[in-house]
Amino acid sequence: MERRYRLVLSCPDRVGIVAMVSNFISSHGGSIADANQHSDPTTGCFFMRVEISANSLQFSLEQLREAFTPIAASFNMDWQIEDSSRPKRVVLMASRESHCLADLLYRFHSKELFCEIVCVISNHDDLRSMVEWHGIPYHHVPVDPADKTPHFNEVNRLIESHDADVVVLARYMQILPPDLCERYPHRIINIHHSFLPSFAGAKPYHQAHERGVKLIGATCHYVTQELDAGPIIDQDVTRISHRDLPEDMVRLGRDVEKTVLARGLRWHLEDRVLVQGNKTVVFA
Amino acid sequence: MERRYRLVLSCPDRVGIVAMVSNFISSHGGSIADANQHSDPTTGCFFMRVEISANSLQFSLEQLREAFTPIAASFNMDWQIEDSSRPKRVVLMASRESHCLADLLYRFHSKELFCEIVCVISNHDDLRSMVEWHGIPYHHVPVDPADKTPHFNEVNRLIESHDADVVVLARYMQILPPDLCERYPHRIINIHHSFLPSFAGAKPYHQAHERGVKLIGATCHYVTQELDAGPIIDQDVTRISHRDLPEDMVRLGRDVEKTVLARGLRWHLEDRVLVQGNKTVVFA
Amino acid sequence: MERRYRLVLSCPDRVGIVAMVSNFISSHGGSIADANQHSDPTTGCFFMRVEISANSLQFSLEQLREAFTPIAASFNMDWQIEDSSRPKRVVLMASRESHCLADLLYRFHSKELFCEIVCVISNHDDLRSMVEWHGIPYHHVPVDPADKTPHFNEVNRLIESHDADVVVLARYMQILPPDLCERYPHRIINIHHSFLPSFAGAKPYHQAHERGVKLIGATCHYVTQELDAGPIIDQDVTRISHRDLPEDMVRLGRDVEKTVLARGLRWHLEDRVLVQGNKTVVFA
Amino acid sequence: MERRYRLVLSCPDRVGIVAMVSNFISSHGGSIADANQHSDPTTGCFFMRVEISANSLQFSLEQLREAFTPIAASFNMDWQIEDSSRPKRVVLMASRESHCLADLLYRFHSKELFCEIVCVISNHDDLRSMVEWHGIPYHHVPVDPADKTPHFNEVNRLIESHDADVVVLARYMQILPPDLCERYPHRIINIHHSFLPSFAGAKPYHQAHERGVKLIGATCHYVTQELDAGPIIDQDVTRISHRDLPEDMVRLGRDVEKTVLARGLRWHLEDRVLVQGNKTVVFA
Repeated sequence: MERRYRLVLSCPDRVGIVAMVSNFISSHGGSIADANQHSDPTTGCFFMRVEISANSLQFSLEQLREAFTPIAASFNMDWQIEDSSRPKRVVLMASRESHCLADLLYRFHSKELFCEIVCVISNHDDLRSMVEWHGIPYHHVPVDPADKTPHFNEVNRLIESHDADVVVLARYMQILPPDLCERYPHRIINIHHSFLPSFAGAKPYHQAHERGVKLIGATCHYVTQELDAGPIIDQDVTRISHRDLPEDMVRLGRDVEKTVLARGLRWHLEDRVLVQGNKTVVFA
Repeated sequence: MERRYRLVLSCPDRVGIVAMVSNFISSHGGSIADANQHSDPTTGCFFMRVEISANSLQFSLEQLREAFTPIAASFNMDWQIEDSSRPKRVVLMASRESHCLADLLYRFHSKELFCEIVCVISNHDDLRSMVEWHGIPYHHVPVDPADKTPHFNEVNRLIESHDADVVVLARYMQILPPDLCERYPHRIINIHHSFLPSFAGAKPYHQAHERGVKLIGATCHYVTQELDAGPIIDQDVTRISHRDLPEDMVRLGRDVEKTVLARGLRWHLEDRVLVQGNKTVVFA
Repeated sequence: MERRYRLVLSCPDRVGIVAMVSNFISSHGGSIADANQHSDPTTGCFFMRVEISANSLQFSLEQLREAFTPIAASFNMDWQIEDSSRPKRVVLMASRESHCLADLLYRFHSKELFCEIVCVISNHDDLRSMVEWHGIPYHHVPVDPADKTPHFNEVNRLIESHDADVVVLARYMQILPPDLCERYPHRIINIHHSFLPSFAGAKPYHQAHERGVKLIGATCHYVTQELDAGPIIDQDVTRISHRDLPEDMVRLGRDVEKTVLARGLRWHLEDRVLVQGNKTVVFA
Repeated sequence: MERRYRLVLSCPDRVGIVAMVSNFISSHGGSIADANQHSDPTTGCFFMRVEISANSLQFSLEQLREAFTPIAASFNMDWQIEDSSRPKRVVLMASRESHCLADLLYRFHSKELFCEIVCVISNHDDLRSMVEWHGIPYHHVPVDPADKTPHFNEVNRLIESHDADVVVLARYMQILPPDLCERYPHRIINIHHSFLPSFAGAKPYHQAHERGVKLIGATCHYVTQELDAGPIIDQDVTRISHRDLPEDMVRLGRDVEKTVLARGLRWHLEDRVLVQGNKTVVFA
């Protein structure tokens, strides 16, 4: 994959944003390899993502950022420029269920996911061998149900010491404390095993069985302080029948969970997910 | 389609039910054209649906019922036998939105749905011409928001006078009173424009837009006294994106609604839906 | 829906196209309501579609075209500008099967499809009443199997006299002669009842049954001289099982056919389909 | 999972088959845990699969087979009885692409697939470490393009010496010689990376890109002497767009391939796939 700079921005909508951005790029010889934009009529916000062929610019990333700063200021933009050749640093968190973890490890191993998995943190030691086979450090951080604070302190220390860009809760079954959620806004991704907002909280497949739904689903979302209520990145469903008991749903749901999580993480790694309030704009 | 008798039953599960039923049929020369069964391990209930080629029996339907009665009693069965050549009598109810109504009328007109649509009842007069083109009586029964009782009395009178087997709420936007729901258990079918249990109640597409879900859906269910909480017959979803406003969801959702409703009604007309508590067994 | 000008273009890819186009628009005060672009690395072609809020320009459509002409020339563009408020003139062609026709008529009637259906042409008289109920002229043009030329001459005369922008073969079961195909490049849309390139030609559901596939599909494509081989606009599939006979596939396939055709036509009417060789770029 | 005997049969359809089979079972105290049947009106064949709770019978599997033999003979049945507690012996074959292999290994490792993977055979040594981590023997059998006979002789010897019940071609890129195909009828399962019959043979994603289809798929089928033409067990598709190059299709297709192969293998392992001519009956 050719190296690219990814410019991602949002700002109040007005005439001339695209012209200004594309002029800026072309005036420096930059070639636009891909571009997406979206105006939200309900909020008056404008969103844009542009991929610029890095070798079409004589700039470094730093110079590019500097040059773009005054334009961004004049349009009141939230913005960032990323280098596609820099892999994001990912911390995976898991518990005992391995399907999402194994799936992400495989996609990383086969170079489908471009990132660096800097470590796996788990409250159990079960998945150590699988993780270490991939050459990735495994941190077993037990949870004391009577006092979870030491666990989360250590988790936080590990995230910081590994300088993580993004944390993925790959069926990590603990609820993060509010301060941890707040510290990494839109940087902690969770997979919930239901089609939210249905069946938030515990044992969603049992809830689904109880209600007699005909499809079950999974939801990949950013973690916020409110449980299972953060901005949704992706969702999908699969069909079930009256024959399927909760344990069948667990089995069938696993395939949906891992697909949805991998897709959501991929989009995040490629800077395709922009957050607006409690919703996402996904330039897939 | 060859004429068939449809035997549908449920009873406490035990050894020998299938043997007894199939012996009964074959001992009278009956040929089983199709059969489905299901044992629910969580409730200990057994469900079965058998299609018998009518011309393989020297029986009338009445004689068949009589002959089966002692067997049914010995197994403590809930059961019915239907003749596939008798069209069920259907009352359609609608308001102003025509997509579900038009879809059902077309499927009826093209003989895809085997039934008799005995009338359409609406609280508005808008859809009269469309209905009457199909040669179906149209009853305009206005609703007085201050007192809905006269409306529902007249609705009930019409359902009774038309001797309806099933009532379909094809985007009829009024909430039926409890006594009407009770009078026709598992005989009133509604289409709700969300993937229940998410977004029950009013304006589900606006609720979906608010929450930022990535799929919208529709749910076909039997009506009970609790709003949007009856046994689910079928559900489906379609993908949306951040670009879709509530009005786009309305448009995209229409195709899901009409497909799900037509499928659910078809299954009901073919005696494929068995109710167990607040859930359905669908022998599709 | 707010009135918009739709600029659709393709040209050899090079630096500065987006900048030039967006400058052109913003320098005249034009507000970009929506935009899509695509660079095809295998052909070196660039494709773009821009929606401009019409009331943000002090221009007429004609002046806009005139002003854009020199820019288009300098980039060697194939291009067009359309006014979203002008409904395209559509001729529908059908035979005896009514599901696609009825579906398009309903979507037109309910204002979901923005267009003018100027007439329906059929080689049978069966669907006259349905069409005329919608207030649309119905032309019955019989086919003489021994000499189809008079039929196609009359079809061509009707298309011309109605000044059609697009012709939709809504399960019209005749193969158009090459000269008719050539006369309306990328303006004749067909629905084929298989997932092309599988099962081109006659009786695709029977072919599918013979082969034992587990999904059946439908394909909406532009008609070219080669049968069922033109640029594909959209496709979809539905699941079947060993229980489904060809007649069941016909029934299940109808829902796929009408959905795919309606979606493809909608995209065409909104100038979202660009053709490149024998393939399409769809800015959906 | 409770232990069960699986009786699978096919025979010419006639009155009384179900009665005879269910009588046979219930007369020995056997409890039917699950049952499926299918009459094919086009061939006059009848298919049945029954799961009997093993602990409801006082029989051994051998005695059960013996007792059923005369019944089977009188109905001219093809039949088998399997013990659900005996894992089938599976040989996996792969080349360099690991996604299907890794997926099956994971499902085996997590006990989702109930079988014994007796060995992996590959014409390359690349995947040895992944396989051996699972504790499974890895046989590297190189192919000499000038003379493939020694390779296939060794493959055959390994299949025989491992006493395999089923061989899975998990993206093994060699075409099996006719005699090997014949030796294991309906016991060699292949995954082809297209929605067959479209794009049989080499490089299906490139063929799909060339044709401009809007969905790509995968097909799991039994191997016969004719390339990519054996009985289809399962298929699925995923949506693509004009943006997707063949390499994107390869990536997106991997998820479809592995899901379809895992589902097809699971059904085979559970004796749910019955072959009729070049088609399958799948009691899923």
